[in-house]
Amino acid sequence: MEQQFLTWLKTRVALQSQEVTGIGDDCAIVHNLPESPQVVSTDIIVDQVHFDVSSHSPHMIGRKALAVNLSDIAAMGATPDYALVSLIIPMHWNLTQVQELYEGILQLATEFNIEIIGGDFNRHEGPLTISVTIMGHQTSDALKYRDTALVGDDIYVTGPLGGSILGHHLLFTPRIEIGLELSLHNSVRAMTDITDGLVIDLHSLLKANQGAILYADSIPLRPEIKGDTNALSRALYDGEDFELLFTASPQFTPADLTSHNHRDIYKIGVIHHEKGISLEDSSATITKLTPHGYEH
Amino acid sequence: MEQQFLTWLKTRVALQSQEVTGIGDDCAIVHNLPESPQVVSTDIIVDQVHFDVSSHSPHMIGRKALAVNLSDIAAMGATPDYALVSLIIPMHWNLTQVQELYEGILQLATEFNIEIIGGDFNRHEGPLTISVTIMGHQTSDALKYRDTALVGDDIYVTGPLGGSILGHHLLFTPRIEIGLELSLHNSVRAMTDITDGLVIDLHSLLKANQGAILYADSIPLRPEIKGDTNALSRALYDGEDFELLFTASPQFTPADLTSHNHRDIYKIGVIHHEKGISLEDSSATITKLTPHGYEH
Repeated sequence: MEQQFLTWLKTRVALQSQEVTGIGDDCAIVHNLPESPQVVSTDIIVDQVHFDVSSHSPHMIGRKALAVNLSDIAAMGATPDYALVSLIIPMHWNLTQVQELYEGILQLATEFNIEIIGGDFNRHEGPLTISVTIMGHQTSDALKYRDTALVGDDIYVTGPLGGSILGHHLLFTPRIEIGLELSLHNSVRAMTDITDGLVIDLHSLLKANQGAILYADSIPLRPEIKGDTNALSRALYDGEDFELLFTASPQFTPADLTSHNHRDIYKIGVIHHEKGISLEDSSATITKLTPHGYEH
Repeated sequence: MEQQFLTWLKTRVALQSQEVTGIGDDCAIVHNLPESPQVVSTDIIVDQVHFDVSSHSPHMIGRKALAVNLSDIAAMGATPDYALVSLIIPMHWNLTQVQELYEGILQLATEFNIEIIGGDFNRHEGPLTISVTIMGHQTSDALKYRDTALVGDDIYVTGPLGGSILGHHLLFTPRIEIGLELSLHNSVRAMTDITDGLVIDLHSLLKANQGAILYADSIPLRPEIKGDTNALSRALYDGEDFELLFTASPQFTPADLTSHNHRDIYKIGVIHHEKGISLEDSSATITKLTPHGYEH
């Protein structure tokens, strides 16, 4: 139903303005300042879908609400500036719980030098819900988009994948720093963050006449799933990795990045002109992959 | 608890940046373009608090989600530009219902020349939830703030009050046009929109050394509550009127406004130097009012 709705929405919302680009990308870009376009994005998280109040602390949940938004800014190679935070708090929560939640937001905000400039506060009998809108700006020469991959580009990720549900989805560091460094390289072409899962998010980078091969042995696995018989499948489909997924021309070498960033970069595949996404293992066996996503 | 939380939040969130003002006002103001500051605000609405899915159509609910945000822009005397819309849809809803909801948003967006530039889509077993962030900009010489009332200012509202729950809270037209016209007048000093109720929102305009007298016979009543024995009390406390509440120096006369706007303006009181808000009736009897708000 989400796909049906989004397909319908594209036909229904035709952008009139010349001032905005990037609709459907990780952020919308508002070109109000020619030398430094603004990037904006919004994400909402809710109990039992994106977290579980019975096992996650208010602090961790608040942190995640901001972190998932920062990941969208990272995916553009932009710098975050401001956030607006709306809360719907369960009626039985006390002030201390709300404060702990907000401290989780504020701690990450301080870490990334972001100011909370607005919000809304409500209570109800339903689940804890947090909506964050993030505003940032372009700092390097160019932002990185989803639809700019070329055939022959190598495919990279910025860290190990799979098993995020075991804890990483709450504790991850948004890839702002490496996103900014990647944005400085013209050889980096298309970029997004992995939220729905490697295969489906890679699919979102491919144009109609493009496909991709992933190298099974090169896909980095999170320590938590190593040894798991489904480890590779989890790395392909689990979602909420919040690592950057990008393509770059063969001129790009991770060693060009600062040392603490290049250590975290893994080449995992290549864009080619045959439609679909395939997996190639060490014996050169090719398996077709279906781009389905993680269901929260 | 909301007040406790907001009081705590003020101590916790100290604004570092010189670029943002208006925190705690109807919108935050981002001074990224010196000649035309940006205004941003966010509101979240949820089933059983702000509407009732069993009696309100998806179209009306979608419309309200955007309208309440537009009311915040109107309260600054600014022009709206862009919105971001996040949805959490009940699992049992079908595509048609989601489309109807979105059409309610889009119809109002078209009416006010606003573009939807981003959003998020989720489904869950809980209540329908819609979060909207609105971005606009200053078009006249000055925005109107909450904390700029002076003793001696008259108090005005832009329409009749009370009984909004009987339908107006879903059907109201955000006061963008009149807000913009009021922003052109230097004699208009402080402004907000009535969301929590006349008395509590008026309280939010008063500084520590200020109070107000309301003229009981001048407070305009919505047609739905005329004849109701509690009509005046409802006009004072009901909330979700989404009319503009503003103060202006004695130089201001509503007749200075364009005719279709000045017909809707009612002088309902005056700011004075005695703390508290009082009601004066036709026999000059004064009653102290308590600034409590509408509980959604």
